[in-house]
Amino acid sequence: MTQIAFVLAPGVTALDVVGPYELLRLLPDAEVRFVSHEPGPVLTDGGVLSLVASHSFAETPSPDIVLVPAVSVQDARVGELVDWLRGVHETTRWTTSVCGGAILLAMAGILNGHPATTHWVAQPLLSQFGAESRPEERIVRSGRIVTAAGVSAGIDLALWLVGELYGAEQAEVVQLMIEYDPQPPYDSGHVSKASARVLELATARMAELYPGESQPPE
Amino acid sequence: MTQIAFVLAPGVTALDVVGPYELLRLLPDAEVRFVSHEPGPVLTDGGVLSLVASHSFAETPSPDIVLVPAVSVQDARVGELVDWLRGVHETTRWTTSVCGGAILLAMAGILNGHPATTHWVAQPLLSQFGAESRPEERIVRSGRIVTAAGVSAGIDLALWLVGELYGAEQAEVVQLMIEYDPQPPYDSGHVSKASARVLELATARMAELYPGESQPPE
Repeated sequence: MTQIAFVLAPGVTALDVVGPYELLRLLPDAEVRFVSHEPGPVLTDGGVLSLVASHSFAETPSPDIVLVPAVSVQDARVGELVDWLRGVHETTRWTTSVCGGAILLAMAGILNGHPATTHWVAQPLLSQFGAESRPEERIVRSGRIVTAAGVSAGIDLALWLVGELYGAEQAEVVQLMIEYDPQPPYDSGHVSKASARVLELATARMAELYPGESQPPE
Repeated sequence: MTQIAFVLAPGVTALDVVGPYELLRLLPDAEVRFVSHEPGPVLTDGGVLSLVASHSFAETPSPDIVLVPAVSVQDARVGELVDWLRGVHETTRWTTSVCGGAILLAMAGILNGHPATTHWVAQPLLSQFGAESRPEERIVRSGRIVTAAGVSAGIDLALWLVGELYGAEQAEVVQLMIEYDPQPPYDSGHVSKASARVLELATARMAELYPGESQPPE
């Protein structure tokens, strides 16, 4: 069995973790778990939806694959999560992040000197932590570390990872199962494609929704 | 405020609902809720992850927008959900579904004579319920009803809907916020693009994971 641990912590962005989960859970030998400080509901960043952790970090000392979504770096217990990540990374087959999850990996020292990506808002913070920010790339691999850009990029990361683990045919099977044939009706999904006005509005809205999250935690 | 009700029920496919939620929650005047028979955790189809409903169906008699994901049509209480859908559709501004959610709308009589889409596995069932199946389309609009194809298609539906509700600029803002610039590393996300072998494997795996779900409920 391949044990896959999806991290949950207060302020998690739901799609960061649910997107990859929906592909990786389809693997024939996957033992999927949602891990947090304790089992039980974890409130996401929107303040309405909770996802339920199935296991604690302590119960999950050696996952084969760990996936870290964006969570609040201002949460009082973020240090425990960072310590757990540092520990499990010693023996993972793949250590992965989506969106601001890369900041957690960086805080754990895992990205020191590695190329990596994150949500466009957090790219400067990633550099401050000693990673080589690659804002133009959607998925960045460095050895057994794979980081993805913001939120929806986790779906591309997971599909790529299925191909690495089980080959192209299996990746195509899970892609068809979730009918991942994207046809976005607009084309503003990357900073390089958005208008100056759209970038300005999105930056302001991110700052409003996530105050202080793109600054180093104290 | 625009009240948006995301339906949860046993056997729900998490990404069907979390994908659209992650865009629609960013609307300036959205009052988002996750509705089910009762508030509390609802187990998803994978058997590991639960999502927590914030409100009951009874507490939510008149949402402006309702979004129905795939849930188990074999669940003992599916009739209550279908009755609720039939009722709320009378006054919704938009009634929407993702993946097998269209089957629930069809069971409620809402799709009679309407063009609609669903997951490729469920297209024949959609026709049996009196809808005009459109398996080649990712999003189908018919009046104030919008249905999306399988799982990941809900993201495209939600982005389209933001544009309808608030215009192109707002759609581009939320697209950038979730960095929805898809770059799937494989190209097998629609039946017309998949090889015969991949289709065969995916069909077998769907039947294994969802026994009886693509048959009419008894």
